[in-house]
Amino acid sequence: MGRWEPNAQSRLRQAAMDLYASRGFERTTVAEIAEKAGLTERTFFRHFADKREVFFAGSERLRELLVATVTDAPVEAGPAQAVAAAFESVAADYFPPVAFSRQRQSVIDANISLQERELVKLHAVAAELAAALQRRGVSELRAAIAAESGVAAFKVAFSRWINDPDDRELSTHMREALAELRRAA
Amino acid sequence: MGRWEPNAQSRLRQAAMDLYASRGFERTTVAEIAEKAGLTERTFFRHFADKREVFFAGSERLRELLVATVTDAPVEAGPAQAVAAAFESVAADYFPPVAFSRQRQSVIDANISLQERELVKLHAVAAELAAALQRRGVSELRAAIAAESGVAAFKVAFSRWINDPDDRELSTHMREALAELRRAA
Repeated sequence: MGRWEPNAQSRLRQAAMDLYASRGFERTTVAEIAEKAGLTERTFFRHFADKREVFFAGSERLRELLVATVTDAPVEAGPAQAVAAAFESVAADYFPPVAFSRQRQSVIDANISLQERELVKLHAVAAELAAALQRRGVSELRAAIAAESGVAAFKVAFSRWINDPDDRELSTHMREALAELRRAA
Repeated sequence: MGRWEPNAQSRLRQAAMDLYASRGFERTTVAEIAEKAGLTERTFFRHFADKREVFFAGSERLRELLVATVTDAPVEAGPAQAVAAAFESVAADYFPPVAFSRQRQSVIDANISLQERELVKLHAVAAELAAALQRRGVSELRAAIAAESGVAAFKVAFSRWINDPDDRELSTHMREALAELRRAA
């Protein structure tokens, strides 16, 4: 195995997801993932703390992007607008192709501990967005509601995206979910 | 130990929470909980599947109450109104005193697997509320947004309630959170 490993992370991710989907998350080992990707276990552990983190490797970057957009929103933007802009921005750019997201979700849906982990990550997103809004001078209640309802809209949009028979974009679903959130109130 | 065990469930719940708070959730055994409550382990297992379920014993009933209120809402009530009425109703009646809820939350906050479990329960509440709205003829998107944003408001209200230095009622916090949700949009 040479030192040059182009796209090692995405190769490992795809190999892992293929194995998780075909033989189950619990029964797949890191050695098998590395072998399927044509890489070493050591390379795997340079990219992921363990086989569960393959699902959530991008979640820290996602939180950073969301928080940065809220923090940099124009001063005149209200909290709901700032949160909406943040989710519209990541929905347009950040996520892997829908085929990968569907495969990933089907593995998560079959494993309660992965579902729990995913919900904890979303909960952390809401808490960080609320904190970012408070740093902009937004009251605690207003910040919490804007952050939690934004995450709620994202959950709905993401689920509709990966279940959409017409393959419309995540950004389209995100805009629809945010519009419905505004309309409902 | 006689067969007459008045309030066995609430005695076990309080004994468990006292032990979890003083010596930690992981280090507490069912035998110790039963002994502290003056009851047998067998009685414990008549009320709770395991020591983790002490935290979530009421969650099924909570889901039932929420779904029933949404289902029975007047036909002219919109989805957001039906969900708001459901959360206002349980906020007024359903929850144990704030002192117990605070103690329970401090134990959950110290244990990631309990936090995960709590989030899964809330996720299930949202899914059931959305399904109840769809049975009323509400579209999938509208139902999902009303349910998820209602749960978002509840999360915020519950957290503000157990952290309120002025000890205002959960129902007051619930009304404030729902009003802020409407205002934000």
